[in-house]
Amino acid sequence: MSNLQQRRDFLKRGIALSTASITGGTLLSSSATAATVTEDIKWDEHYDVVVIGSGLAGLSAAYAASENKASVVVFEKMKTIGGNSAINAGSVAVAGSDYQKEKGIKDSPELLYQDMLKAGRNLNHPELTKHVCDHTWPYVKEYCIDKWGVEFTGQVIHVGGHSVPRVMSTQSGSKFINAQVDACKKNGVVVQTRTMIDKIISDENNNVIGVRVREKYRFGKSESGKVKHIRANKGVVLSGGGFTGDQRYVTLQEPTLQDARNTGQKGATSELLIEALKAGCNPVHLSWVQQYPLSSPDEKGFGFAYAFSSRAACVHGMLVRPDTSKRFMNELGNRKQRADAIIASGHPAIAIADSVGFGKVSHSKIPMALENKSLKKFDTLEELAKEYDLDVAVLKGEIARYNELASTGKDVDFNRKMSGVSIAKAPFYAARCYPKVHHTMGGVQINVHGEAIGLDGEVIKGLYAAGEMTGGVHGAVRLGACAIADCIVFGITAGKSVSAA
Amino acid sequence: MSNLQQRRDFLKRGIALSTASITGGTLLSSSATAATVTEDIKWDEHYDVVVIGSGLAGLSAAYAASENKASVVVFEKMKTIGGNSAINAGSVAVAGSDYQKEKGIKDSPELLYQDMLKAGRNLNHPELTKHVCDHTWPYVKEYCIDKWGVEFTGQVIHVGGHSVPRVMSTQSGSKFINAQVDACKKNGVVVQTRTMIDKIISDENNNVIGVRVREKYRFGKSESGKVKHIRANKGVVLSGGGFTGDQRYVTLQEPTLQDARNTGQKGATSELLIEALKAGCNPVHLSWVQQYPLSSPDEKGFGFAYAFSSRAACVHGMLVRPDTSKRFMNELGNRKQRADAIIASGHPAIAIADSVGFGKVSHSKIPMALENKSLKKFDTLEELAKEYDLDVAVLKGEIARYNELASTGKDVDFNRKMSGVSIAKAPFYAARCYPKVHHTMGGVQINVHGEAIGLDGEVIKGLYAAGEMTGGVHGAVRLGACAIADCIVFGITAGKSVSAA
Repeated sequence: MSNLQQRRDFLKRGIALSTASITGGTLLSSSATAATVTEDIKWDEHYDVVVIGSGLAGLSAAYAASENKASVVVFEKMKTIGGNSAINAGSVAVAGSDYQKEKGIKDSPELLYQDMLKAGRNLNHPELTKHVCDHTWPYVKEYCIDKWGVEFTGQVIHVGGHSVPRVMSTQSGSKFINAQVDACKKNGVVVQTRTMIDKIISDENNNVIGVRVREKYRFGKSESGKVKHIRANKGVVLSGGGFTGDQRYVTLQEPTLQDARNTGQKGATSELLIEALKAGCNPVHLSWVQQYPLSSPDEKGFGFAYAFSSRAACVHGMLVRPDTSKRFMNELGNRKQRADAIIASGHPAIAIADSVGFGKVSHSKIPMALENKSLKKFDTLEELAKEYDLDVAVLKGEIARYNELASTGKDVDFNRKMSGVSIAKAPFYAARCYPKVHHTMGGVQINVHGEAIGLDGEVIKGLYAAGEMTGGVHGAVRLGACAIADCIVFGITAGKSVSAA
Repeated sequence: MSNLQQRRDFLKRGIALSTASITGGTLLSSSATAATVTEDIKWDEHYDVVVIGSGLAGLSAAYAASENKASVVVFEKMKTIGGNSAINAGSVAVAGSDYQKEKGIKDSPELLYQDMLKAGRNLNHPELTKHVCDHTWPYVKEYCIDKWGVEFTGQVIHVGGHSVPRVMSTQSGSKFINAQVDACKKNGVVVQTRTMIDKIISDENNNVIGVRVREKYRFGKSESGKVKHIRANKGVVLSGGGFTGDQRYVTLQEPTLQDARNTGQKGATSELLIEALKAGCNPVHLSWVQQYPLSSPDEKGFGFAYAFSSRAACVHGMLVRPDTSKRFMNELGNRKQRADAIIASGHPAIAIADSVGFGKVSHSKIPMALENKSLKKFDTLEELAKEYDLDVAVLKGEIARYNELASTGKDVDFNRKMSGVSIAKAPFYAARCYPKVHHTMGGVQINVHGEAIGLDGEVIKGLYAAGEMTGGVHGAVRLGACAIADCIVFGITAGKSVSAA
């Protein structure tokens, strides 16, 4: 059947409502005898697989489904493809990669799993976390490198909360997204922007059979766009990301974040999550919202200075609080530990590295941070101290102490792993850091096949989910670079599952 | 109209489904033209107010509604009335009571509010917490004491996490429940046990209009009992308690509790919460599950020894860990701090007080704990140490140190408030403590009127909620004795609101 014919095709079906059916609380049948609502849904288009959201999880799912010969559409509500995936740091935690082996770094899926459980306060759904850890290198190798041609820098980076250096980087999430879009299009996947899903459609057995969309949707105008009904022969994949940009829903779960800024794009809202909950998905860990500790208050959103603060200052330098001019944390602690420490201090922290530490990091965003002045360069520590209102004598004492610890390799003050680089050689670099809302750990419940689980604990047939849209993989606190790992592994998993349905 | 006539009355109404209507994900209407499902619901009974759950929140709501001349029914799924409210310690936090004033204790709603926010990690919905704090003494005075005749011991107790002594006690939750049931019955409230709600019924505008029940329900048999439809003219109050006894749902939110025991009765399950979520209620803080730190592993459920451990050992004595025979916490920290400390130690803690500390506490459950041997009496510290495998020399050193701190009134080791009583005079008493699942902080979202809030942030008309069923009042960690305060204040609030509807 041609696409055109499919579009003209009406799926005539009576929707029988069993006694179990409820409409947002409306009882449709009040006795053991099922009432029947007969109605024709006019399906405007038919696909095997409908993917909602064009970030890393969605495009991974779309690609994996297309490999299985499924016809696939990806709907993106925004004008641009990729969501937060396109503006992130492009860092992916990979356990047991060839890059690690080349550098003699001993790592394993089990060690990554233990790191994720520790950061996650053991709230993680262990089978989901394990599934991600077991597949980071196999899927990054097979899909990112071999099939999509994603280019990594070749570095293996040590990121906060991880036991060993294991993070591979493209320096920008857009490099993943662009490669994925090309690969998807080659496989015939349709990627359609400005298309908002406003209903998930189920049949009489609560199996998901399609979606109602609004084409040419204008973000924030819920009634805008042309309504169409899209049939999903095999299933629907929810990969709409998190809700970090949705102040109402973030504040509901974490009222202290009322005035917090965030690192995301404006489309990181809660409508699809809410629609999924209305469709009977089970909410998991919604009250865990992560703040990224190293974003700069001197630029908008995620910005650029974080690249310096996370890669140079936290690894080869230090963070001080401006009121005491002293170190106050393990700069390689997990994100929550670091964000909590900065918030508790009451001030943005000052991230500092010298020219040697600075020179160890090559990152495309660092020149942009120097350009917008969120990252600054100083010829002397006196100038640096003056800029951030630090006590230069105290600061020099702290640096002397830091250098002593760096030379022994053992940070007895804050128990951090030391790279051995001291803070000594001018010029010096510094940036301010203050937490911004960055990731929502919670979402809908899934199983290891990427199938959505309903409130009663049963699989919702025809419904799949992956990425930040889901809850359980990261528990209470997500480790850095584990979001992309999650999106790739569960995106591919969901894509394989839905196309095999 | 007589009840009999009401029962014979059929409410004939067409249920029109707007485009917004969805059945557990089923789209019933696919265009801007509303489809209409016409159906007769045969209402078996009519009440103004239907209250679900007969614990403190439910009975408070029922009483307040009955005062407003509403006809009220309370449905309880179990054979016995009261749920966990009937088996708890009967302790209620009251800020600014006459009892405190008599004893010269300076307290205020604001101070309780700050204590609750501190324990709750500021995750509390502040307006809800404030509403509870502002009404503890007014409502305890007007309702518990004056209208229901609840008898308090007259003591004002210092409970962990509270800044000052403020807890009033009946020594058993059943004293509240019995008094409430009597008062409710005098006002014509029908209290019906073994009646399970299996559907919340809404009309075409998603207003809640009634419930489907199963009478003569047998707990755990979801298909048991006779189905009836109950019309709620003014509204339905959800006060079904928490889900501490529901291993599937607890583990989903907090996987570490897979093997944890719990303090509750077996009816503390999740069906009503799940039904409320299906009806479009907004989930808040579901991942915060509290463990009670001082329950005894040597008895079932909540037991009795906690009365000694919380009132005598934590206030006038100390807790030691058996592997070191040393103190290891502020024994008046909040529940999470204490539970975490015991779990981290890997062993049940040993709670110890001498005869002076023991004699300061009069509690009806203490003789029961001695009877079942979860609490034991020793003539010498040597005997006590032998029983719990402690190093008696180390223990004596710890006691000497403790007595030194007690005499100065300042616990520089663990920053606890000291009562001044030392551990010196035989006989000595001791009990083992290990955390058990005790309270679920999360639940459905409400506003300060006790109205249920839907996923989209709007009030669900006709639906109210109170008590452990709701989320937000306690944030991440509930303080001791604040559950009864919450149940009374929000129960009465919801009862006033629904009956005024």
